[in-house]
Amino acid sequence: MKGKVYLVGAGPGDPELLTLKALRLLRTADAVLYDDLVAAEIIALITPKAQLHPVGKRCGQKTILQSEINFLMVALAESGLRVVRLKSGDPLIFGRAGEEIEALRKHGVEFEIVPGITSALGAAAAVQIPLTHRRASSAVVLLTAHRASGSEADEWSKFAGSGSTLVIYMPGQNYREISVRLKAAGLNGATPCAVVSRASTLRQKVRRTTVDELRRTPPMVAPTLLVVGEVVRFANEAALRQFVVPANVNTDVVPFSQVFADFHFPENARGSEEPIA
Amino acid sequence: MKGKVYLVGAGPGDPELLTLKALRLLRTADAVLYDDLVAAEIIALITPKAQLHPVGKRCGQKTILQSEINFLMVALAESGLRVVRLKSGDPLIFGRAGEEIEALRKHGVEFEIVPGITSALGAAAAVQIPLTHRRASSAVVLLTAHRASGSEADEWSKFAGSGSTLVIYMPGQNYREISVRLKAAGLNGATPCAVVSRASTLRQKVRRTTVDELRRTPPMVAPTLLVVGEVVRFANEAALRQFVVPANVNTDVVPFSQVFADFHFPENARGSEEPIA
Repeated sequence: MKGKVYLVGAGPGDPELLTLKALRLLRTADAVLYDDLVAAEIIALITPKAQLHPVGKRCGQKTILQSEINFLMVALAESGLRVVRLKSGDPLIFGRAGEEIEALRKHGVEFEIVPGITSALGAAAAVQIPLTHRRASSAVVLLTAHRASGSEADEWSKFAGSGSTLVIYMPGQNYREISVRLKAAGLNGATPCAVVSRASTLRQKVRRTTVDELRRTPPMVAPTLLVVGEVVRFANEAALRQFVVPANVNTDVVPFSQVFADFHFPENARGSEEPIA
Repeated sequence: MKGKVYLVGAGPGDPELLTLKALRLLRTADAVLYDDLVAAEIIALITPKAQLHPVGKRCGQKTILQSEINFLMVALAESGLRVVRLKSGDPLIFGRAGEEIEALRKHGVEFEIVPGITSALGAAAAVQIPLTHRRASSAVVLLTAHRASGSEADEWSKFAGSGSTLVIYMPGQNYREISVRLKAAGLNGATPCAVVSRASTLRQKVRRTTVDELRRTPPMVAPTLLVVGEVVRFANEAALRQFVVPANVNTDVVPFSQVFADFHFPENARGSEEPIA
């Protein structure tokens, strides 16, 4: 008997930004393998019946290799379990899902991918930055600052010249280096940017700056994200100063159980051949 | 008494890809303004107590202006209602949220943005295409084929030269024109691409092709999305032939009400200053 693996996006941090499908899978999993960056509040939602396997690659004493994660995931599924591989954000955006997919296919393990809110969208929503705008940006580039190869420098200059919004994942804490690279790529030093730390959580912090001033920006707590482009001018001023809990937070939050007391998700909710309406 | 507007992403189509927050808001809204592209199965989840305002700009007989949508949204909120402005995908990616945000700020209407699974992520998950891959692509560009201005042609050539995955939203049905533009931008004619129609729904269809062959690809039903780049080689072969409903679909779908019968979403789920675990 073979089990199944679900590669599931946990979204940016706020548990309410999980998809219904992700929550259903977390409530019915036999085993969950999760990364360090997945918020503790989301781990707390996993059914107590599931085995928990933290497989983060940074904070633990031991370094877990990607091949070890693949091995564990395959072994659990082959023993017949319903396995959730939980990744922060979306699994297909900088989540190394490509390698996990290859391992699952190689071993003939059935799997399914469940998308999540990628950090760029979580951060943009929290800070109210339209990533595209009719007058300011007609494209969005999602990239990382991880690999400082020659080809990447070349890539950055192409993006910088396109006038698009750039969203840099995992910028690390060396903002000076990123500032230098963005300018070397041809970006105007006055281009607005925002560093967003722990987007969508109550611990979110945001700092608006410019490409030039980025070199003097103090380090912020991971996970962080850097948004670069004219659209940052549209950001919410209050959100930029610090995360402000709305005055109506208590009236706004309706307990989930109450909302769903009389709610039945239709069995054929994924749609039939004919539209319902 | 002023109400509040929620700009909410409905995701790519599958109702289970709504976020928990989106579903909560749809179950507690006083009024919902929604676009044509939002799936009928999602509209069916809105509380029957809410006023429904279809404000799609394409299929109706009358053309609704963006200014009219803004006016209606502001007027409903100013009459004290809890208004959901529901957009397919994510509101900040090609959703013209920028203009709606400006209108809401101008009228001093309180608002909040709730991100959604953008179509690129929904399509990639359904077809199992890792949008980034250590060996094949280190960046993703989200763009549209809508505006055929000179500056856009220039932009396309920059993206084409970067080796990134390109995801083209709203490609329309003139694939020949897109093929010509991609080649003019410098893309190799053999670059793999996939047209995904109605991603994440049971009516999903996918066609894998190349930049050259795209000109002979028959039109597919909107909403469609075009993924271009080497990562398309990693796509799932079965998904490419046609959408296959998994054999275990019935055992896999646990009724939502059953999953949540004993589940209480913690009141402080959005996190406290201290991690829970």
